[in-house]
Amino acid sequence: MNNADSQTLEIEIKAMGDEIRTLKTEKADPALIKEKIAAMLEKKKLLGDQFDQGKFVLKTAKGTRDYGPKSMVVRESVLKVVTDTFKRHGAETIDTPVFELRDVLMGKYGEEGGKLVYDLQDQGGELLSLRYDLTVPFARYLAMNKISNIKRYHIAKVYRRDQPVMTRGRYREFYQCDFDIAGQYDPMVPEAECLKIIDEVLTNLDVGEYHIKLNHRSILEAMFAVCGAEKQQFKAVCSSIDKLDKQPWSEVEDELIKEKGLTKDNTSKLGQYVALRELNPSLDSTQLLDKIIESEELSRNLQLKRGVEDLKILLHYCCLLGIRSVYFDPSLARGLDYYTGVIYEAVVPSCCKCSSFHINFHVSISVISEALENIDLDGDEGDLKGQPIGVGSVAAGGRYDELVGSFMEPSNSKAKKRQDVPCVGVSFGIERLFAIIDAKIQAEKRQVRTTETEIFVASAQKNLLEERIKLCGMLWNEGFKVEMSYKANPKLLNQLQYCEEKLIPLVLIIGDRELLDGVVKLRDVKTRTEQDVRLPDLICTLRNTINSL
Amino acid sequence: MNNADSQTLEIEIKAMGDEIRTLKTEKADPALIKEKIAAMLEKKKLLGDQFDQGKFVLKTAKGTRDYGPKSMVVRESVLKVVTDTFKRHGAETIDTPVFELRDVLMGKYGEEGGKLVYDLQDQGGELLSLRYDLTVPFARYLAMNKISNIKRYHIAKVYRRDQPVMTRGRYREFYQCDFDIAGQYDPMVPEAECLKIIDEVLTNLDVGEYHIKLNHRSILEAMFAVCGAEKQQFKAVCSSIDKLDKQPWSEVEDELIKEKGLTKDNTSKLGQYVALRELNPSLDSTQLLDKIIESEELSRNLQLKRGVEDLKILLHYCCLLGIRSVYFDPSLARGLDYYTGVIYEAVVPSCCKCSSFHINFHVSISVISEALENIDLDGDEGDLKGQPIGVGSVAAGGRYDELVGSFMEPSNSKAKKRQDVPCVGVSFGIERLFAIIDAKIQAEKRQVRTTETEIFVASAQKNLLEERIKLCGMLWNEGFKVEMSYKANPKLLNQLQYCEEKLIPLVLIIGDRELLDGVVKLRDVKTRTEQDVRLPDLICTLRNTINSL
Repeated sequence: MNNADSQTLEIEIKAMGDEIRTLKTEKADPALIKEKIAAMLEKKKLLGDQFDQGKFVLKTAKGTRDYGPKSMVVRESVLKVVTDTFKRHGAETIDTPVFELRDVLMGKYGEEGGKLVYDLQDQGGELLSLRYDLTVPFARYLAMNKISNIKRYHIAKVYRRDQPVMTRGRYREFYQCDFDIAGQYDPMVPEAECLKIIDEVLTNLDVGEYHIKLNHRSILEAMFAVCGAEKQQFKAVCSSIDKLDKQPWSEVEDELIKEKGLTKDNTSKLGQYVALRELNPSLDSTQLLDKIIESEELSRNLQLKRGVEDLKILLHYCCLLGIRSVYFDPSLARGLDYYTGVIYEAVVPSCCKCSSFHINFHVSISVISEALENIDLDGDEGDLKGQPIGVGSVAAGGRYDELVGSFMEPSNSKAKKRQDVPCVGVSFGIERLFAIIDAKIQAEKRQVRTTETEIFVASAQKNLLEERIKLCGMLWNEGFKVEMSYKANPKLLNQLQYCEEKLIPLVLIIGDRELLDGVVKLRDVKTRTEQDVRLPDLICTLRNTINSL
Repeated sequence: MNNADSQTLEIEIKAMGDEIRTLKTEKADPALIKEKIAAMLEKKKLLGDQFDQGKFVLKTAKGTRDYGPKSMVVRESVLKVVTDTFKRHGAETIDTPVFELRDVLMGKYGEEGGKLVYDLQDQGGELLSLRYDLTVPFARYLAMNKISNIKRYHIAKVYRRDQPVMTRGRYREFYQCDFDIAGQYDPMVPEAECLKIIDEVLTNLDVGEYHIKLNHRSILEAMFAVCGAEKQQFKAVCSSIDKLDKQPWSEVEDELIKEKGLTKDNTSKLGQYVALRELNPSLDSTQLLDKIIESEELSRNLQLKRGVEDLKILLHYCCLLGIRSVYFDPSLARGLDYYTGVIYEAVVPSCCKCSSFHINFHVSISVISEALENIDLDGDEGDLKGQPIGVGSVAAGGRYDELVGSFMEPSNSKAKKRQDVPCVGVSFGIERLFAIIDAKIQAEKRQVRTTETEIFVASAQKNLLEERIKLCGMLWNEGFKVEMSYKANPKLLNQLQYCEEKLIPLVLIIGDRELLDGVVKLRDVKTRTEQDVRLPDLICTLRNTINSL
């Protein structure tokens, strides 16, 4: 970066500081202020690098992070619950490359998503992009291999050049865990299984309270049509409505009028529809659906009926499956282009009891305080402190009947119809689930083992390295999980301390006396009891001891 | 692509065709010809796309592939053996992002590797590249978190813009399984554990014959120095020697003279050193090392002694651990920059018994024949047919004591020394192991189950969808692995057929008679025996039946 660039940066940073000060004065949304500060700190970091005159900054790419051994243990335990659930429902697994031809991804993710795709540099050859989700690669896989029936899961990382908000678990690289059913089936049977899977994963992870919102593209289309939005505006309007969980209606309405070209009349009507649930707190989902179908204005729309019928059947199946807290929410509008039928989203409400978000939050508070100090802001951060941060959506999905067909050759209209592969699926946002479980472990002060070592081979005296190597080799060959010190002459105390730190349950100690007697000393780390074991009995004794641990 | 681009392409393709014809005439290496043809076909494909006038070509990016359910089962079984071995040795696991700041990767992969790094497009913000291996990100992780002691494994995909050779298992996206030990320890103890891990993985995967080659940077440096290569030529000479497993000495020698600036005198001497093993077939590794240290010329080099001593200790530890087929090979020179001590490579020799390589090979032969046809070559492919394709290196690694330090701030020379974190590790090329295991399964005609479903819930009559949903829900809640048809009224025969195809062992059949009697029919798919089970006994009966399967 040259001097001119540095100056530009400094000017930008100053402007950002001004904006933050204004927001503070106006008592704006604390979350917004936090985001602005984070953005400014990123800029400052860039500038800082320059001042350090080429000093190399050791960091991961923006919006990404490493997982250390403890995080990995938690993450693998969460992934296991998800994988086990998918397998319990008879799913196979597939894997696709991390990048796709750019053409495969183009036009699939709505107006917001499209901007967030990572492109690879053109180094000669094909134009490639990193996958944005696992659904489009799945559809490409089905179309390419002419598969019309499959129930598969896919657990892998996806990439979005979004503004990262680490405290909310929003990263640029994150795991998705997808389960999808492709095939021509009877209405709502595969949908019901997807919802059952959400229910099982969230129950088995013990995340506490959660609910699943349902809606249907046909209902949204009917609502929009009645409110005067043109058919081609559907995606644009959806993408505004989709922001309702983060923004108040007034802001969304503003966007609809100013950017999407709706009139105030349109939006007031639309506002009433999307708030239908809140306006009728005494009605259950079926009654709300009845209310919609009875509405003279809406029921004139031919699409509506299918949507209402689908949701009624689905709610009935959910009842048969014992899934609680599923409800129809007319304000649910997922931002992606490809949904054609039912859509759903599972939400874990912001939760004051959940210590993790306090922990994360306090970290973030300290970062923010620092930031505030750095830019000489005179306000205090008291209004942010202790405020719980919502976890939000942890799983979402829906029906997409035309995505696979969009990859097929449209040779003639009849053939096209035959080639369509109807799909429905669900995707878990594992990073948020991971944060919830991590918080629980911290709250319960549970000890997390990062290795599975059963036996540590230690020496009581010097010059026993070769004996230890031989003993370890023999135990590894027998399938035991074994470690030893890599030092030639480690102190016994250090070896035992290592076992206590790493929660290794057993130690085998060899010394000159033991070698002479043809025994090894077996020590139980927890009880600190020791016994001599004759070498011919060693394997058998170890197996029995480990089985009884 | 415009018309001018197409013309350029056509010219390039014509030139490539000419080159291939010349190579054929000169009876060049068949593998080389194959590669040239593959490259030309790629070009032709690009051109083809143009001719199809915007027709969308459905494919994965060059050098990548999807894994279907069957491949995934095989792959997961191979990965499990590797992971279990790493865990048996007490390793923790970490994960790092798929891309790194470009500066982190720069200058780490030698002259060949550096060209093969995938860069992300500059979309504003940081300059990023996809990881080329897991070692450099590991070193970055240690330096960034100031970790000086860890034994970790990392299983993840890496990316190289190499010329893909699918038939040899060389892809642009492939898994690496890395095990590394960081810390200041006594000589060769961690190295011995790395070799033991190679031995265990290859033994447990039952890949058949294999051997592990050893060498040492100090020995290579001494050899090069004696042969007149300057110290700063080390990397360049290594990268030529590294090609010896693919090219004959004459070609490597040619490269050393023409591109690396050695004289014919230099290379003849070097040729004798790298062929030391072949020239002394009666000597074992220790005797070869003795021969080297006794050589007047070599032993004048001060570096040599450390290398020879290290290898002798390591060979002794291997003996204690019972690792067979480890030997010193002075021609082993790994191409990467960061090795500082012992290096090793495990090789599965080309194997005529191994049917997979015949299978793969015959596929590739048909592709080549087609290619030959397409470009009107008049030769026949008889000289290629039936020739086994070697599997080559399946694991490799070595000691790299300075890589972590290279990420540390060189505040002063004393501090730098203190900050160095010595490391040694091994990386498995899982794609090749995967190919070997896949071939074994095909050869043994083993049936591979892609799901774990235990029970299929079927209906004997129409209108039992709700009953099936309820029963499935109950069984899922009890933790059984259960599937049912998504059709409202599936035929019993189709349901039973599905179970036989998918190797699902048990079917629960409900019908009007069963519902009336308060029973379900339990069918054993293999024996086709059926029994009525009373509903209150169902869970217990299923548990017992599944346990005894």
